[in-house]
Amino acid sequence: MEKVVIPFKITNPKSRLSSVLSIEERVQFAKLMLLDVIDAVTGFKSNLEVIVLVPSETNEMQEFREEVERLYDCVVFREDRRDLDGAVNAIIEAEHEVAIVMSDLPLLTPQVLRRFFDCDGDIVISPGKKGGTNMLLVRDGRFRVSYHYGSFIKHLKMAEQLGIKATVFDSFYASVDIDDESDLLELMLHGDGKKSWKFLTEIGFSVDFSRKEPAIRRRSRKL
Amino acid sequence: MEKVVIPFKITNPKSRLSSVLSIEERVQFAKLMLLDVIDAVTGFKSNLEVIVLVPSETNEMQEFREEVERLYDCVVFREDRRDLDGAVNAIIEAEHEVAIVMSDLPLLTPQVLRRFFDCDGDIVISPGKKGGTNMLLVRDGRFRVSYHYGSFIKHLKMAEQLGIKATVFDSFYASVDIDDESDLLELMLHGDGKKSWKFLTEIGFSVDFSRKEPAIRRRSRKL
Repeated sequence: MEKVVIPFKITNPKSRLSSVLSIEERVQFAKLMLLDVIDAVTGFKSNLEVIVLVPSETNEMQEFREEVERLYDCVVFREDRRDLDGAVNAIIEAEHEVAIVMSDLPLLTPQVLRRFFDCDGDIVISPGKKGGTNMLLVRDGRFRVSYHYGSFIKHLKMAEQLGIKATVFDSFYASVDIDDESDLLELMLHGDGKKSWKFLTEIGFSVDFSRKEPAIRRRSRKL
Repeated sequence: MEKVVIPFKITNPKSRLSSVLSIEERVQFAKLMLLDVIDAVTGFKSNLEVIVLVPSETNEMQEFREEVERLYDCVVFREDRRDLDGAVNAIIEAEHEVAIVMSDLPLLTPQVLRRFFDCDGDIVISPGKKGGTNMLLVRDGRFRVSYHYGSFIKHLKMAEQLGIKATVFDSFYASVDIDDESDLLELMLHGDGKKSWKFLTEIGFSVDFSRKEPAIRRRSRKL
């Protein structure tokens, strides 16, 4: 059975959005983006196992975990106090075949996931902005992740060193990880109907099309 | 025969890069990005017609035109003094079926173009950042383009009003239009071997991987 790992943290999430979203809003927004990712993954295939990888079980995480596990049969939370690389690599070593999908990719759809899993290659890598790795499908238990300092290039080099085939997955929707204000614009433009999109809309975000380049606005607040 | 239109201007191109590239460098860079786009298009299919749409025939454009038309059999330059929308819409009205590809998409490859032309739909639209339309395949002569104030959403609405089918083409490589410094980083990370990538490398650009997030550097200049 295919396994999908989604690393997720709830403590001060999306700090680069702190100028436009309060801490409570950022926590709620991060949770809803995770649900958007889970919706895309489970919409692609219902009989897979989704592991939400969390660094620690705070009270708030415990409540959220119960809520999510109630909503989705195939989702389990797993606590791992190691850093991201250590936690993910332990899963790769144990499972040999696993997909790692970031939790801040609300533009993912079941169609994108289908195309991703259909790619051949011992690893399939989906680039994010600034050299990141937004989705990674590992089909060789010897592979190891390293998520900082330009992970996309590092992951390609790692595959080369192992002598295994790396396929680059070309997707705009998978490339948009929500990090700063400019990314919120992409979510508002392309995320119609997503849970995180609805949340932004409800708290007053909209797109201003009156200028040559669209910009986001928040009701009664200047961004 | 398939027609591909590439709008191109040579007068003060890529002005948002003026803090990191001189005017001469920007002109050369814009020319090389155009050649990268032509390479991707002609690499996908050799027997198509590529029209480079230019606003006016300056002396510099005349020289460049002769050079490009000598290099590529299937490329012709066409001067049109109307604005971008007017010039492109006249071609759509005359040809009924045409692809419009922006000239600042150096990460395009023949494979991306193949997947793009394989899409069904009366229009196929490839989103750029900030709501732009980076590639557009029109198969209905009634369609009209409108390239500013959020063209992606406007083009989808236009298709809806005409009652024709719009397909969104999901590509990271096609989404990266080179506009500002952050886009140069994407070209340096993903454009290995492209003419525009070689140019940036030759004039001293490189990627600094020493920080958590990669950044571009220029030799003996601070960006």
